[in-house]
Amino acid sequence: MKEKLSIIKIGGNVIEDTNALDTFLTAFSKIEGLKILVHGGGKLATQLATKLGIESKMIDGRRITDAETVDIITMVYGGLANKKIVAQLQAKNINAIGLSGADGNSIQAHKRPVKEIDYGFVGDIDSINSELLTTLLSTNLTPIFCALSHDGAGQLLNTNADTIASEIAIGMASTYETTLYYCFEKKGVLMDIADNNNVVKHINTNTYKTLLSDGIIADGMLPKLHNCFHALNNSVAKVCLGDVTMLDKKTELFTTIQL
Amino acid sequence: MKEKLSIIKIGGNVIEDTNALDTFLTAFSKIEGLKILVHGGGKLATQLATKLGIESKMIDGRRITDAETVDIITMVYGGLANKKIVAQLQAKNINAIGLSGADGNSIQAHKRPVKEIDYGFVGDIDSINSELLTTLLSTNLTPIFCALSHDGAGQLLNTNADTIASEIAIGMASTYETTLYYCFEKKGVLMDIADNNNVVKHINTNTYKTLLSDGIIADGMLPKLHNCFHALNNSVAKVCLGDVTMLDKKTELFTTIQL
Repeated sequence: MKEKLSIIKIGGNVIEDTNALDTFLTAFSKIEGLKILVHGGGKLATQLATKLGIESKMIDGRRITDAETVDIITMVYGGLANKKIVAQLQAKNINAIGLSGADGNSIQAHKRPVKEIDYGFVGDIDSINSELLTTLLSTNLTPIFCALSHDGAGQLLNTNADTIASEIAIGMASTYETTLYYCFEKKGVLMDIADNNNVVKHINTNTYKTLLSDGIIADGMLPKLHNCFHALNNSVAKVCLGDVTMLDKKTELFTTIQL
Repeated sequence: MKEKLSIIKIGGNVIEDTNALDTFLTAFSKIEGLKILVHGGGKLATQLATKLGIESKMIDGRRITDAETVDIITMVYGGLANKKIVAQLQAKNINAIGLSGADGNSIQAHKRPVKEIDYGFVGDIDSINSELLTTLLSTNLTPIFCALSHDGAGQLLNTNADTIASEIAIGMASTYETTLYYCFEKKGVLMDIADNNNVVKHINTNTYKTLLSDGIIADGMLPKLHNCFHALNNSVAKVCLGDVTMLDKKTELFTTIQL
């Protein structure tokens, strides 16, 4: 039987709030067994860009990453957010090690080809270095990923944190029984977006189709659920969506997705 | 016989200059055997602070590190400089992995006690995690350290890069035959500060005393040489001081220091 591995992704708004981050990191530190964290940087990058007089360009919620912007993201995601999380986890007795995709060649990607929109220095993932991650995990280290990959030719690339989490879960699935947790502000997939307690507790391939056709899964949840099923269709055992209370099992109110 | 390990420290002004950095990283990539890089961040942190309207306070060339400043240093040293170096070394086929002292608990320190001057969030090193570094080196990874340590209680600490390099060299000396390279803009210890080719090629304990009493070693070189002899007195095999040409052995004009 394969050893279990949890891959947890947290959103940017947890990172912006000192108290929420501490609550999350405490819950994360208590997850039993092997684990990997993937974090975004949220509005911190936009805030720094604004202070520096650099305009943040977004199209459909995605950041256009020019040369100045990739530097800002490297500072905020790879520096400030990542190192603070690592230092705070060390204080909670988790031997965390912060990584961008360039570190140990852990996530190699290519710059997204220009079609209608030029996203700039944005990466689409080619490979996860599962050998490195297995070595780190077996040394009792807990990898903490920021949302940066690299192209192997010296360029860092801004990369969607949801996608990094699902690709790591897929890349590790042949070695471990991997569960992917998307931790965000909601309690899961909601039947009614206005009612955070009306959670769809279980989703499978069939109910997914119904939820899509009924418009329950819409807007920002569409790419998230697409990532979930992409992971499940590539040997990931289970995907869970919910807020921080899902992690320390203080609630049963979260969404579990299995094929 | 112990395996050889080179610890190379580069100064901030190499990092600020794209061409100089590339020249340095090419030379670094060609060093045979196991190696570790330690880098500062130079004026980049001051530049970012200025852009953000934060005053940089220096006393005797040392930065006073308040809470805002440690965030800036974490962004610039731990984020921008460290990840760019790692990505560029990956392009030169070096499997680099960027680390702050918090990552893998690699450098634990304590906040410098306040005496006459409160340096703020500045760290004095307590321990190097030589076990972790040995594991990384034996996995063919090349650790790249920025000038940050942590206190084990969640706080990152600004830490002198020269000291990090010498403490790593000392910490690894029981496992490896360690040589410490201080790579900077001069060709070594100079007999005449105005003549970059008039290099003191060899220094030992006796000639060190003479160079001190003759005032040849003075000003900024005093703490650097102090670090060198501290390392040599703690089992480091050899210390070399010089510019980038020292690394790829294109010159014999550099200073070698042995007891």
